[in-house]
Amino acid sequence: MGSIGHVTPQRMHFAQPLPLKSGAQLPDYTLAYETYGTLNEARSNAVLVCHALNASHHVAGTYAGQEKSEGWWNNLVGPGKPLDTDRFFVIGVNNPGSCFGSTGPRDLNPATGQPWGADFPVVTVEDWVNAQARLLDELGIEQLAAVIGGSLGGMQALSWTIQHPQRVRHALVIASAPNLSAQNIAFNEVARRAICTDPEFHGGHFYAHGVVPQRGLRVARMIGHITYLSDDSMEAKFGRALRAAELAYSTQQIEFQIESYLRYQGDKFSEYFDANTYLLITRALDYFDPAREHGGDLSAALAKATAKFLVVSFTTDWRFSPQRSREIVQALLDNGSDVAYAEIDAPHGHDAFLLEDPRYHGVVRAYFERVAAEISAVSSPAVAVSKLREAA
Amino acid sequence: MGSIGHVTPQRMHFAQPLPLKSGAQLPDYTLAYETYGTLNEARSNAVLVCHALNASHHVAGTYAGQEKSEGWWNNLVGPGKPLDTDRFFVIGVNNPGSCFGSTGPRDLNPATGQPWGADFPVVTVEDWVNAQARLLDELGIEQLAAVIGGSLGGMQALSWTIQHPQRVRHALVIASAPNLSAQNIAFNEVARRAICTDPEFHGGHFYAHGVVPQRGLRVARMIGHITYLSDDSMEAKFGRALRAAELAYSTQQIEFQIESYLRYQGDKFSEYFDANTYLLITRALDYFDPAREHGGDLSAALAKATAKFLVVSFTTDWRFSPQRSREIVQALLDNGSDVAYAEIDAPHGHDAFLLEDPRYHGVVRAYFERVAAEISAVSSPAVAVSKLREAA
Repeated sequence: MGSIGHVTPQRMHFAQPLPLKSGAQLPDYTLAYETYGTLNEARSNAVLVCHALNASHHVAGTYAGQEKSEGWWNNLVGPGKPLDTDRFFVIGVNNPGSCFGSTGPRDLNPATGQPWGADFPVVTVEDWVNAQARLLDELGIEQLAAVIGGSLGGMQALSWTIQHPQRVRHALVIASAPNLSAQNIAFNEVARRAICTDPEFHGGHFYAHGVVPQRGLRVARMIGHITYLSDDSMEAKFGRALRAAELAYSTQQIEFQIESYLRYQGDKFSEYFDANTYLLITRALDYFDPAREHGGDLSAALAKATAKFLVVSFTTDWRFSPQRSREIVQALLDNGSDVAYAEIDAPHGHDAFLLEDPRYHGVVRAYFERVAAEISAVSSPAVAVSKLREAA
Repeated sequence: MGSIGHVTPQRMHFAQPLPLKSGAQLPDYTLAYETYGTLNEARSNAVLVCHALNASHHVAGTYAGQEKSEGWWNNLVGPGKPLDTDRFFVIGVNNPGSCFGSTGPRDLNPATGQPWGADFPVVTVEDWVNAQARLLDELGIEQLAAVIGGSLGGMQALSWTIQHPQRVRHALVIASAPNLSAQNIAFNEVARRAICTDPEFHGGHFYAHGVVPQRGLRVARMIGHITYLSDDSMEAKFGRALRAAELAYSTQQIEFQIESYLRYQGDKFSEYFDANTYLLITRALDYFDPAREHGGDLSAALAKATAKFLVVSFTTDWRFSPQRSREIVQALLDNGSDVAYAEIDAPHGHDAFLLEDPRYHGVVRAYFERVAAEISAVSSPAVAVSKLREAA
């Protein structure tokens, strides 16, 4: 297993507006994306990787001349890795509304010539999937071998099977949920309030004031971080360890290591993440609820899905608990869909989907071997379709 | 069972400074307190109620001419109630550093003639217990029949048995923990950062500026509120219910009922709670760790305790989970202490300790009947001590 090496981000401009679920539309826009591996002649080995809140099209590899520039899923995607770039043509794409290269709130609103700011149209998981589908059109990919994502990325993978059932053969839905719980929405709302009530937010038009609502972003990130880690892993990593040998008896100074860690995470995040993007992406999470238009019936929502599924959850993930993944599995089983489910006993909470756990990676690797075997079988005219079905 | 009726808060001034665990001291100070019921001739029926973050000496009854002025534990304390004021002399006391009547950050620092603000000395659970003990001295109560508290109040009850073992016969430790976990500290720290980075905090000296860091207090309260409720009870009460018939597709407007509820709770809280008190009380929570001075050995910390214990936890409390209560029980059992433990199957999360649950209240009632029986037995010379022991 090696690294994918240096990669180069690409950009594609779309002149045709993107109609959005809200009824609004996104005028001409640009998507940042990366690809790894080679598209085969049959164009049948493409795998789309969908990102979550704080990630981008930079899934794997590094940027030349930039230290610590590994992609966010570099441990999973690469030559000989579970998602093997020697076999698959892997595409990472930054969603519109994000702040890592695709059109977002920092860009200019063509109607005003000023940054979009808080006026950037509200985007949903469904809108992102449609934007991704257009990119695939341009890349000449009619059907994906697989779509994969964790957390919010898993919601996109799930949505692909509903919105474009004919365009996706496999969906890998990892550490995800069919919608947010009241508690999930509650945490998002606190984070949003922290940002929106920061005086430097200026109603979302802070760019014009030359400031950034860093205080709000810090608090938002700290809250998020707590929900990404399990109680146990936080206990194991920090416990009640003190920063100094003695207590300072202070309400504002740092006493415990966990405080130091959280403040550091908040500071770092507030220096690069866009506040309006935080609002947009947490809202996309809140809104995602494919069952809603079917009276709350998730099976009905997934009735048109023809993909095969791998659903993965992690035992200590209290943000998107295994119970939420089992809801997806049950709905798929009710429809007679082909679904494999793995509940990984991992200590790391929601963050586990980003980490290198042998059991987790083993499951994903095995699944992609199945996907690859199907591609080889189809590519080889000697194998009859009936035999392929038998093997699957 | 009736209400205790109208009650009147009292105040007691202490001219002698209170030495604090930090090494500092609190100069002359005042404690607000209330008492219900009658102290018997033997002065053996006193029960001290310790409060948690957002509560006070006003435990039960109402204030004349004030609507909705029921004490915070009015469902538990009163004539014929589980803590029966027909049998017990119940004392509620507001802790120094709080903002409900006892000396706190809003009061004047005698050294400067200005409000204490952020200079109010850092107080600990141990300091509060010592302040409470001094109040009992003044009330002529040498020994408590029982001390009871939930959450942070339970920590005070536990600490009483360590600091003043001879002065407490029973301790009821409810929905509490032997110390905060890393995750508990993390939530406190986010709340504190929200307050301290609010520009209207002014380093804790906002009184002089005629402002209040309400934005920070709101966020702090919203975070707290999420941790008080169970995921399930939040789901049952709010789920994904919308406030309007249709989605507005907005990042800043309220879409979900849970958002409306949290914002309301935050607004209300920010209008009456003192920001410096929030910092002080969350820090007292962080610091509490009786095992620390015994190399992490909780049994050693509790070795001198002679009280009998009732420990109660609630199955869905993820803030102070049953596991944390079982740590206390185990340490007491290791010492051969007399301890009863009840794990109540209740859906309401940490908040359950404030609610009227028949199983929970049944356990507390039964325990106090035992405490009352001991008092009667001791009061009646006809009952031999051996017989009493037999009955217990």
